[in-house]
Parts: sequence; C-alpha cells; structure tokens
Amino acid sequence: MRDFSAGHELLSINTATVRKQWPLDRIIDECARRNVRAISPWRDQVATVGLAKIARQLKETGIVLSGYCRGGFFPAADAAGRLAALEDNRRAVDEALMLGAPCLVLVVGSLPGALTGSPAYCDISRARGEVRDGIGAALEYARQAGMPLAIEPLHPMQAADRACVNTLEQALDLCDELDRGGSGALGVAVDLYHVWWDPKLEAQIARAGTERLLAYHVSDWLLPTRDLLNDRGMMGDGVIELKKCRRWVEEAGFSGFSEVEIFSETWWQKPGGDVLDTCIERHMRVV
Amino acid sequence: MRDFSAGHELLSINTATVRKQWPLDRIIDECARRNVRAISPWRDQVATVGLAKIARQLKETGIVLSGYCRGGFFPAADAAGRLAALEDNRRAVDEALMLGAPCLVLVVGSLPGALTGSPAYCDISRARGEVRDGIGAALEYARQAGMPLAIEPLHPMQAADRACVNTLEQALDLCDELDRGGSGALGVAVDLYHVWWDPKLEAQIARAGTERLLAYHVSDWLLPTRDLLNDRGMMGDGVIELKKCRRWVEEAGFSGFSEVEIFSETWWQKPGGDVLDTCIERHMRVV
Repeated sequence: MRDFSAGHELLSINTATVRKQWPLDRIIDECARRNVRAISPWRDQVATVGLAKIARQLKETGIVLSGYCRGGFFPAADAAGRLAALEDNRRAVDEALMLGAPCLVLVVGSLPGALTGSPAYCDISRARGEVRDGIGAALEYARQAGMPLAIEPLHPMQAADRACVNTLEQALDLCDELDRGGSGALGVAVDLYHVWWDPKLEAQIARAGTERLLAYHVSDWLLPTRDLLNDRGMMGDGVIELKKCRRWVEEAGFSGFSEVEIFSETWWQKPGGDVLDTCIERHMRVV
Repeated sequence: MRDFSAGHELLSINTATVRKQWPLDRIIDECARRNVRAISPWRDQVATVGLAKIARQLKETGIVLSGYCRGGFFPAADAAGRLAALEDNRRAVDEALMLGAPCLVLVVGSLPGALTGSPAYCDISRARGEVRDGIGAALEYARQAGMPLAIEPLHPMQAADRACVNTLEQALDLCDELDRGGSGALGVAVDLYHVWWDPKLEAQIARAGTERLLAYHVSDWLLPTRDLLNDRGMMGDGVIELKKCRRWVEEAGFSGFSEVEIFSETWWQKPGGDVLDTCIERHMRVV
C-alpha cells in the first residue's frame, strides 16, 4: 500500500469541495499554491470561467485532472430528450479531451424529472434500460475519441433522482455487457461515500481490477447524517474505513490519485483555504 | 395477484405509523373500529400499556399480529453487551409468543454506539460477524419456542447505526448459513422502503420463496426525501412501484398481510383517524 503520510502527491481535489467559496480559476490557483497536483472539476465550474482559459491555466500550473465531472443523466421523458442527453455527453467527452482528463465520470441519472419532484415515470427498470442504452451510445463516441467513461455507482438513497446504478456489482455488470473485453474504454469510479456500506465491496473491487478502476473518491459518512446530498464528512470525521478500502483498491491494481469530494453545507461555510489545508492534512493522516 | 380493491382484509397497520398520536390500546381500538384485522406493534408501545392488557385486548377485538417489532441490535462493545442483547432478544421472543405473533422482526443493529454518535468501533465487517453470531444464538431459543425470526434488511443509508444487513440477498445468505434446510424458523421481512432500489430485488424475492418471506411492509419513497429516518411517504405519494413489487412477492408464494409502516414527522402531525383512513384508502387503491 502506498505511503500517504509523507506528502500529498497522490491527492486530488474534486473542485465541488470548495465550489461555494471560489470560482474554478481561483480554486486552481489555491491548489497550485499548496502543491496539489491534481483536481477533478465540474462542467458548470469550467463553463463559468471558460474552457480555453481553464485548459491554459492547467497547463501553466502543471495541475492534471483525475477525472472530469460529469456525463450521464441518460434517461429522458421522450426520444428528443434522450437524443439531447446523448449530444450533451458527447460535448462532455470533447471537454474532457480538451482538459486532458483520464476519464469522464458518469452520474447516469434515473427517473426523468425526479430531481424536480415530478418524474415522467416511476419504472426504475426502464430507467436502467435507458442508462444501458445511453452509455452504449456514448461509448461509441468516447471510444473513438479515446476518452474512457467511468460509471459511478451512487448511494441507494439517490436511486430515484440521480443514479439508478447503485452498487459496484451493478456497474461492473454494465461494463461487462457493454465492453466485454475490458478494453479500458469503460470502467468505474469508486466513491467510498456511495459504496462503503456494501457487503460485497471488497469482492467487487477485486473483480474490477486495473482495467475497470478509473477513479477513486474519498470523504466520510457522518453520524448522524442530516441530508441525503450535502452532508458528507471530512475524512476522519465519520465511520468509513478509509485505509482498509484503499488497500483493497490498491491490491486490485489501482495506482491513480485519491480524490477528495465533499458535498457539505458545513464545509462550504468555511474559508476555502482552511478546507484545502484540512483536506491535505487528513489525506496524509487518515486516508 | 390478490385483489385489494374491494376491501382491506389483508391490510395490517404497523403501530409506529400513529405512535405519536395514540398509545397502543387506543390504536387497537381505532383499528378495530375500522375493521383492520391485523397490526404489528412495537415493544415499547406494548410495555407502556402492559403486555397482559394488550394480549387481552387483541383477543377481545379479534385483531391478530402480522409481526412483532422488534428484536435485534446484536453487536455490542463487549461480551457483557452481547449477552445483554441476547437476553433481550429472548424476552422479545417470549413477548411475541404471548401476543401470538407469526414472527419476530429483527433490526439487526450495526456499529455499537453509532446511534448516539460514538461508535465503539468502525469495522462493519466485525459488526456483521456479531450479527451472524447473535442471530444464530437467538435462533436456538426462538426455534425451541416456535417463534420464527424475520431478518429485515434496512436501507443502506441506515447501515452505520441501525442495521448492517442492507440487501435482501445479504439477508437470505444469512438465512441459508444459519438455517440451511429452510425450516421456517428463519426468514426475512421485506420492507419496500428499504429495498425498492435494489437491482436484484425481483430475483431475490423469487429466491426467498414461501419459506423465507415472513413479512411484507409498504410505504413510499418521497421526492425529495428530507430525513434519513422519519420522512417516509404514504403509499401513492412517492416512486415505489407498489403493485409490481407485490406481484413479485405473491408470485413467490407470500400470502400474508400487507403491513403499512410509515415513519413520518408529517403524518405524525395529522389526526390519527385521518392517517388510518388514508392507509385504508391507499391500500385499496395503490398497494
């Protein structure tokens, strides 16, 4: 297992972690100042500052991406919606290429309209079928572009509105169905916040292996958790066995960055510099 | 599939649904007044009124139990705690017998102390081992007493503090390990609120079959869900495919009551009679 205690060379900051404090260009500067070598930005953050400007800034600072957030949200109420989703995923692939991302992370979506409280239908099996078809279609484009797609299983508490892929096993079954050979074009993003509870986690991480493990995200599960979306904990403040899980991932062959992704109204209220400094300190001590 | 539209003979009310409005004796009277044939009471509600009094009242009203809530919470910080948990489970078995329950529902517990925010340890695998051993020990007593134990898989968002059995597959694996022959002494309680999201749900319900399906609970998953514990929806107000899931359960051989269990600060604020009337109406129309 790699030694994280002496430095933070393998730390990546998912830029949602300080999204309410700073725009993305400032986040990149603050990361560069702290010798953070990698980030994972969100499309809306990139769009606000400008894609070309962010690409240039990354080049200047030498900061690389550990992933690009995000593609997905494939299910739609009708054929026009599904086509629009596919086109949007192609644009996301293009942007990921521009920024030199190692993969495009997919939050696959679920019941169309559920995020606004009015789902067009409630058949989650149908949504899962649309997700399979949507990833399949996006994969054709992404494969030609040379941009790997990383399916992120989301916690079952987000199954209705954000992602109907909810276990690592289910994500890997999808990978095997759509990319039989394990070409490297399709894999998974393992975010411990979403999967830590799974009794099959260790076995499925081993099954994933180097070919499928494209990204690794850390945060922590708080007691109590007060919100289904924005109450993630800083590493060390919750119950997730971070070191044990990292050992599983590294034993399966993963050698990439460990990406901190914390959606938290609590941490979004703190000064951004304090948040980044805490991420670095916890990464060295408890991740 | 059984026809629920003409009456509510197959409805059971889990008495937590109106626990903040009324004590248990009043709940039983209100159920009897509405020709509700079955309830599933909680131990603390029984204790408040008195076990003998409740047993007598059930006999007088002819109301039967669809289950008794609950045993479980097996993991503990030390051996004395585990022994105390086992003794408490034996008392729960005795009470279930006194009340003529068809099964004792198990909420198995997880990291000891997590409910109060201070877990004695964070190793969920260890908790799962203690749960297996605890159920095994309780089963010896329950089997002799003739009281089936029903393992209830809880939603993964409650994995840290309430139950480390989080999928139907995991619960059935435990049943097969501890009760190889399918004797009827050990099975599962399928609460759709906890398992509706599971991509393997249909297959695992079929696997469970008549021998293992001891209880069936309904409510609904709201969009948005504002609390991890007490924001369940009334049937029909959320996204769970209630009729589809009931078909799966009945095709697997289940012929028992359909039990409404709604933990909801919203519904706890309404008059108890309105809640019961709504349960009956929804049960006939959407369950």
